[in-house]
Amino acid sequence: MTRQEIIGNIKSKGSFLCVGLDPDIKKIPQHLLREENPLYSFCKAIVDATAQYAVAYKPNLAFFESMGVEGWLALEDIVKYINEKYPDQFVIADAKRGDIGNTSKLYARAVFEHLNADAVTVAPYMGEDSVTPFLGYPGKWVVLLALTSNKGSHDFQLTPDENGKRLFENVILASQKWATTDELMYVVGATQGCMFEDIRAIAPDNFLLVPGVGAQGGSLEDVAQYGMTKDCGLLVNSSRGIIYASAGEDFAEAAAREASKLRDQMALLLRRYGVVD
Amino acid sequence: MTRQEIIGNIKSKGSFLCVGLDPDIKKIPQHLLREENPLYSFCKAIVDATAQYAVAYKPNLAFFESMGVEGWLALEDIVKYINEKYPDQFVIADAKRGDIGNTSKLYARAVFEHLNADAVTVAPYMGEDSVTPFLGYPGKWVVLLALTSNKGSHDFQLTPDENGKRLFENVILASQKWATTDELMYVVGATQGCMFEDIRAIAPDNFLLVPGVGAQGGSLEDVAQYGMTKDCGLLVNSSRGIIYASAGEDFAEAAAREASKLRDQMALLLRRYGVVD
Repeated sequence: MTRQEIIGNIKSKGSFLCVGLDPDIKKIPQHLLREENPLYSFCKAIVDATAQYAVAYKPNLAFFESMGVEGWLALEDIVKYINEKYPDQFVIADAKRGDIGNTSKLYARAVFEHLNADAVTVAPYMGEDSVTPFLGYPGKWVVLLALTSNKGSHDFQLTPDENGKRLFENVILASQKWATTDELMYVVGATQGCMFEDIRAIAPDNFLLVPGVGAQGGSLEDVAQYGMTKDCGLLVNSSRGIIYASAGEDFAEAAAREASKLRDQMALLLRRYGVVD
Repeated sequence: MTRQEIIGNIKSKGSFLCVGLDPDIKKIPQHLLREENPLYSFCKAIVDATAQYAVAYKPNLAFFESMGVEGWLALEDIVKYINEKYPDQFVIADAKRGDIGNTSKLYARAVFEHLNADAVTVAPYMGEDSVTPFLGYPGKWVVLLALTSNKGSHDFQLTPDENGKRLFENVILASQKWATTDELMYVVGATQGCMFEDIRAIAPDNFLLVPGVGAQGGSLEDVAQYGMTKDCGLLVNSSRGIIYASAGEDFAEAAAREASKLRDQMALLLRRYGVVD
């Protein structure tokens, strides 16, 4: 999916919501355990209930992998389902991959050729040749970890180098040379509200994938105030706050309600900052 | 597997060889494509041919994932096969995982509970709470990326902070507080020969998993000279140099020959540095 298509979808839907698909077999509604593949059934119901409010889905590979082969079947099936039924949805394989070149090339083959996702999250620790094998697929994206939403982001990402540049800034500065804004996004946690200004100073145009709104406590208002660009430039993810809004048989309706609330807030913010009229 | 069991296996076999299982469907011998699951058949033949020379196997998850469900079946089957037929082999899931706590927990469930590997490689970028969910499984290990073997290791890992400490040193120093030497190893590339002294200065007792011998050009002699401890403290990995030693029907014999050569060199080094008499 091209940058222009993503922006077009955001404007027409009045939403920059990404719904995170983290289907934990221990947390999904009990009645789904009777289904042939409960993870798939759960995700499909969530997608059908929220698609009108969202522009992206982010299956978190850990949750599928934890079920082994059955999980991979569910993952392949849900991505296929979204691609076929909702082709305007941007699908991000949240995998945090990254390895030496010949191995990253195989991870790229897995997510782009086999799974057919639009984007993959990549960890930057191993540097340029661990990231570039994911580039060069037309219409596909790398979403590189910059400043994450968790407590551990303070352990290394915020450490300044000899020149006062923090690691996440060095990651952004270096990676700008590897890829254009048409193929590279960054992960920036919503819990890092005040850092969005610093990030926009060095990555003014890249889309940012923003986890951490909801269960992790980040503020959508702050993210929009400091992170939004004229093209929006944001995909804000909510996982647990939407998909586990109810543990009962009404889980899909509850998910729709939460997604709808976020979409309404987002529509206001898109107007406030002049992305839509 | 406990640290003492690993050390015992190294001493009794005169080997600290880890064989990397990187089965690329585009590179394995053509006659195997007739098998029901070519990746599994390839890995099984490699394991049977090399088990007497090795103490560990490192399936690289990218190569299995690139085949989707079929690949995951092959991965599960080969780990099960090794665990059953060669229970003294240490199995490292080379996955380079790492995410926020609730997600790392699921990756841990995938590799330790579902796949039943002994260890998993983890990327440190997201800090403590991305690593600790992999700890606390009795007999299971985290192998944390410190200084990798690829060119991109120079992009961030070698960057000094304000106090002159390089990122890989900060990763080692911080992580020593998270886990004991009975559950934490580090990845240090063989291509970084002269750095082993610096690493041993801050991680004198941790086992190091050392890729980069063979196809990537690292020297086994240098690694042993600067990295070996009284307990050996090393698992040196070779993937391509062993498993693709021949592309013909004799691939298993060729792999055995290369593994045997490395084992002979390793036996000499274990004697030279007094690990065995």
